[in-house]
Amino acid sequence: MRLPLLALCLACLPALQADEGMWTFDNVPAARIKAKYGFEPTVPWLKRLQLATLRFPGGTGSFVSADGLVITNHHVGRGGIAQVSSAQADYIQDGFMAATREQEVKVPGLTLEMLVDTRNVTEAVLAAGRSAHSEAAAVKARKDAHAKLVAESQGKDGLVSQAVILYQGGEYWIYRYRRFSDVRLVMAPEEKLADFGHDADNYSYPRYSLDFTLFRIYENGQPYHPEAYLPFASTPLKNGDVTLISGHPGSTFRQWTVAQMKEARDFTLPWSIRSVQRQERAMAAYGRTSAEAHRLATEELKGLANARKRNIARLKGLQSQAAMEKAEKAEAELKTAVAKDPALAKVAGESWARIEKVLEADRRLYVENSLLTTLGSSRQPLVGFALDLVRFHGERALPLDRRLASFRDEAAVRRRIESPKPLDAGLETARLASALAELQEELGSHHALVKALLNGQSAEARAQSLVEGSRLRDLAFRKALLEGSADSVNANADPLLAFARTLDPLLRANQARMEREVTDVVNEHATRLAEARFKVFGKAQYPDATFTLRLSYGTVETYDNGVGAKAQPFTTFAGLYDRHWGWGGNASEAEGGQWKLPQRWLDRRDRLDLATPFNFIYSCDTVGGNSGSPVVNPAGEFVGINFDSVYEGQGGYYIYDADTKRAVAADARAILETLRKIADAPHLVKELTGK
Amino acid sequence: MRLPLLALCLACLPALQADEGMWTFDNVPAARIKAKYGFEPTVPWLKRLQLATLRFPGGTGSFVSADGLVITNHHVGRGGIAQVSSAQADYIQDGFMAATREQEVKVPGLTLEMLVDTRNVTEAVLAAGRSAHSEAAAVKARKDAHAKLVAESQGKDGLVSQAVILYQGGEYWIYRYRRFSDVRLVMAPEEKLADFGHDADNYSYPRYSLDFTLFRIYENGQPYHPEAYLPFASTPLKNGDVTLISGHPGSTFRQWTVAQMKEARDFTLPWSIRSVQRQERAMAAYGRTSAEAHRLATEELKGLANARKRNIARLKGLQSQAAMEKAEKAEAELKTAVAKDPALAKVAGESWARIEKVLEADRRLYVENSLLTTLGSSRQPLVGFALDLVRFHGERALPLDRRLASFRDEAAVRRRIESPKPLDAGLETARLASALAELQEELGSHHALVKALLNGQSAEARAQSLVEGSRLRDLAFRKALLEGSADSVNANADPLLAFARTLDPLLRANQARMEREVTDVVNEHATRLAEARFKVFGKAQYPDATFTLRLSYGTVETYDNGVGAKAQPFTTFAGLYDRHWGWGGNASEAEGGQWKLPQRWLDRRDRLDLATPFNFIYSCDTVGGNSGSPVVNPAGEFVGINFDSVYEGQGGYYIYDADTKRAVAADARAILETLRKIADAPHLVKELTGK
Repeated sequence: MRLPLLALCLACLPALQADEGMWTFDNVPAARIKAKYGFEPTVPWLKRLQLATLRFPGGTGSFVSADGLVITNHHVGRGGIAQVSSAQADYIQDGFMAATREQEVKVPGLTLEMLVDTRNVTEAVLAAGRSAHSEAAAVKARKDAHAKLVAESQGKDGLVSQAVILYQGGEYWIYRYRRFSDVRLVMAPEEKLADFGHDADNYSYPRYSLDFTLFRIYENGQPYHPEAYLPFASTPLKNGDVTLISGHPGSTFRQWTVAQMKEARDFTLPWSIRSVQRQERAMAAYGRTSAEAHRLATEELKGLANARKRNIARLKGLQSQAAMEKAEKAEAELKTAVAKDPALAKVAGESWARIEKVLEADRRLYVENSLLTTLGSSRQPLVGFALDLVRFHGERALPLDRRLASFRDEAAVRRRIESPKPLDAGLETARLASALAELQEELGSHHALVKALLNGQSAEARAQSLVEGSRLRDLAFRKALLEGSADSVNANADPLLAFARTLDPLLRANQARMEREVTDVVNEHATRLAEARFKVFGKAQYPDATFTLRLSYGTVETYDNGVGAKAQPFTTFAGLYDRHWGWGGNASEAEGGQWKLPQRWLDRRDRLDLATPFNFIYSCDTVGGNSGSPVVNPAGEFVGINFDSVYEGQGGYYIYDADTKRAVAADARAILETLRKIADAPHLVKELTGK
Repeated sequence: MRLPLLALCLACLPALQADEGMWTFDNVPAARIKAKYGFEPTVPWLKRLQLATLRFPGGTGSFVSADGLVITNHHVGRGGIAQVSSAQADYIQDGFMAATREQEVKVPGLTLEMLVDTRNVTEAVLAAGRSAHSEAAAVKARKDAHAKLVAESQGKDGLVSQAVILYQGGEYWIYRYRRFSDVRLVMAPEEKLADFGHDADNYSYPRYSLDFTLFRIYENGQPYHPEAYLPFASTPLKNGDVTLISGHPGSTFRQWTVAQMKEARDFTLPWSIRSVQRQERAMAAYGRTSAEAHRLATEELKGLANARKRNIARLKGLQSQAAMEKAEKAEAELKTAVAKDPALAKVAGESWARIEKVLEADRRLYVENSLLTTLGSSRQPLVGFALDLVRFHGERALPLDRRLASFRDEAAVRRRIESPKPLDAGLETARLASALAELQEELGSHHALVKALLNGQSAEARAQSLVEGSRLRDLAFRKALLEGSADSVNANADPLLAFARTLDPLLRANQARMEREVTDVVNEHATRLAEARFKVFGKAQYPDATFTLRLSYGTVETYDNGVGAKAQPFTTFAGLYDRHWGWGGNASEAEGGQWKLPQRWLDRRDRLDLATPFNFIYSCDTVGGNSGSPVVNPAGEFVGINFDSVYEGQGGYYIYDADTKRAVAADARAILETLRKIADAPHLVKELTGK
């Protein structure tokens, strides 16, 4: 806590708006919060919240009882719920409820992390890079120094250490976590409730999603008693009330230079959107080939529409003239300050130009890299299996820190390869053909990558021969390869394995070039710009999101959606039924039936107090990774669980806009009402509230 | 009905989209509707709908029972409801219900019109203009010929004749109405329900407004038995069902040239928005002067915000690149066709250029005219009184057709002047000061209009001396002037009357110049362009809205609001309570308490079937003036009452966009449920449904 400094720095804030900021717990703007809201988060208050917050894979959770009950979003816990489901017991569709602790089901492999300790090692790391003779060398020297420090602390006090880079290279930290690996499923609502409205309602508001699930952490076979937990609120949350949120926002790009933002606006985002639209066309065409194809394609198309929606929302944010002007103004201020200080100018004076120059050269490389990465990503599960299998033995022979990131957790690799989900040959062929056609159209038939991967065939023929000639859709075959030797994989003539053996070195070479020619340069100059920012603004700023613990603050607050409506601060159970009936109820298949309700929600409607708040919007600054974050009141009580943010504010990935940045949470009272009236879980209500 | 021609013309439609068009009843695209929806509106079907539809001042209504019950929007009937209210019985706030016919209350002066007969007099009128030697002369010759024909038919068969110009001067008609002047109030819901969400929810959706009221027409002291009426639907309306709407859309500008649209986009709309924003600033400043000023200013600011919202919505529509490209494409098609036909080129070849040239010259004049008009409009009630009084005696001495439009209905003039609404000196001073300051800032202190109206004083001082020195806030004083002689008004030294004596000739001169230099030229060339359009496209097109009877068709249909949400086709009573509770219920003053509910709506909630549809959206092409229009199903049954259209489609004033043009209606079932469960009106339910 640096309160005195912060208090002084209020005047020199770099145009921080309203409730902007995802603050590290060592640098919470307590004076600013107190000045605005009359509430000061003290060091013990923050420590308690920190220890009650947990990191999930891809999201956040929190302790909500003395007996280790943990809440997160249904969509964060979904993988775990699916894992313990079976053909006989579909907990995703039907929900889950452990009536007793004995019925709580362990989720194998699910590991949660609690941040216990943080250490600033910036001086040591920056010193290591200072004598380097090139941009790449400086980046490497810092990386090595940081890794060495992390390795030294690894495992001490039973904690897991992680290298954390903040302010785009301005600060280097070691974050130390306590890890929990006995996590059991306690309760999940039906997915129809957790994800009510599904893709159609995603990013929208008013909203009616009960996006929560309950786990319990065990240690030594007993429920874990956490150092801190967040009791469900005893006073009702109202419009205008102060809210705070802790969690792990994934990534933002607010400290990018204007050139980087414009590149995203003018090139990379439009490119991504075009790519998704191409896939949508391919899936729509595939869907016209048979009834089963139609069913499969419809499912795919929903996900693609959602990806398009997200990217278009971000692009719209960047296209806002006001937003870009804000970014330009901030950059101009920093540039002026740097130009005035010869020492600073020497460090960072050229950095904007260097980054811009690299971006200009980067487009071709970006396209190639993007096309190759897509081929090996989860969008192509069959190629993904092949690539995982071809890489598996080589990677596991390397020390952890030299492995590809996706191979550091061996259990996760095995789970990927042993996924029991059946794959349809037609769908996979259509999917692969679309990606290969994109490669060919974007790069041209004579490009070396195209020649190597299409092998002289048309995209369709190539995809068909790869998918139909391969046995990789067979789980037993994949298991056998996984258990076999490196040689047996390398010698196998399966065409997809052969394809992966071609793809793997191309991907690695491309990524290495990308790193050398682009990422290292950008990183080095981002570090220099961070140094400049610290010199000019001190620490009255927050770092971009890095999936590490942050605090945001704000209030329950309406906003104008820009197309005529002022959003109601809360929704209620009444609105859940309004949305359901308004789309025609369970008799209707409109828009794929996304607003159907499980029967018990219809049967038990009269039991519910329909005025109970369901979801609410609030002005805390959040981003993906805050999924499942606890929303607390100044008393440190749990008032809701964050699960989304609105469409109009998605430009916040790049530039914060106080008028539209609103997060969406499920209200704690909706959870209690559901546990009481629908899920027959008075024991959980008692555990959460003491009543 | 010209079905054979229309059928042939489907291929040559000028880029008509989806359910576009506000069609005159003589030219409904029946074949097109049948091809798309399998339902053909026949001549008898249309005749029945025509006779069941009524024109209200500023809106539409319809007969809904054999005993002359008429339904319209609450906001259309509001003036009438207010008129029969008193300090003891506030029917606006509390609603109204006549338990028996004896309790039905006559609304003095309210006159409704039923269109009985239409006559096309185009040939005769166009012929009159053909020998004219100038644009203005042609316009005058046509106007005179049209007026003469109207005068000849006036009063025949007990009908009232109206001159109707369609297709911007392409067609000339006489519309003949039966007029009803014994109109009695039967039932009105509380305004909180009729206008739930008020300005904040205006133009938005999902929506929860019960915007209806019931009147009954009497003749000779007995309920009138109409030739046709629309029974409430016996089959439930569903998502995707066909809907048709009859009514009197007020005005659209879709046949404007691209130059006119760009002028609206680049100049007149931004000008209007700036002007509203200026008034908002003035009102906000006034509101800071005292608690009472704050209360008055808050009320004003709501109306101003609404005006700004509407204009910004229209401007956004015009700023859409896709929309403007559509208009440009349509114009280019017509231009090409005109250029190919020498006869047509002679008539209309120069018309686009002529209109564009006039617009360029028009801006200064437009600004002056707009500033002067504002001074004498309802935005300045005190100046309005003064101007009405100064003009009253002179105008009533003229024959009807030579009077200013606002003086043709003497009773209405008297009602304006005798308005009992108290006026606050501070508010009126602030209002007038703002308008005078705008005049001065826009035109400069040395402009003749500024010198004449400000009299060398500052805007604030001038406004203060005018308002505080005047007795016009005193109703008795106004009444005495109204009953007195022309001389007594002319001689009166009241400073506002003196101001009006200065303003009146300036306004008249300015408007005459506007007509001569702009309107006449635009009208003449609009007529020529209409002639060209008929030659090229035949009658497979619809005329711009002119507050005359039209039919639109479409379906109950969702849309994407462009910020992440797909709109639910229907809302329900459950959603009404969701919105109410979501804003904090009656305990909350958030946003001015626009979502509060009357006590009986809280007390009787359990009686309601919350799943009953409340509002719905549908794709019929509508615009202001369609307020109160009946929405019917193909069986000609009443399924809902139109009351609004969504924000995203407001660009439809200029350019139709099928993706966003959605009208909003209150569902017939919501009206019945309200009559049954809240208003204790089973007799009205029986009258509307026969049950």
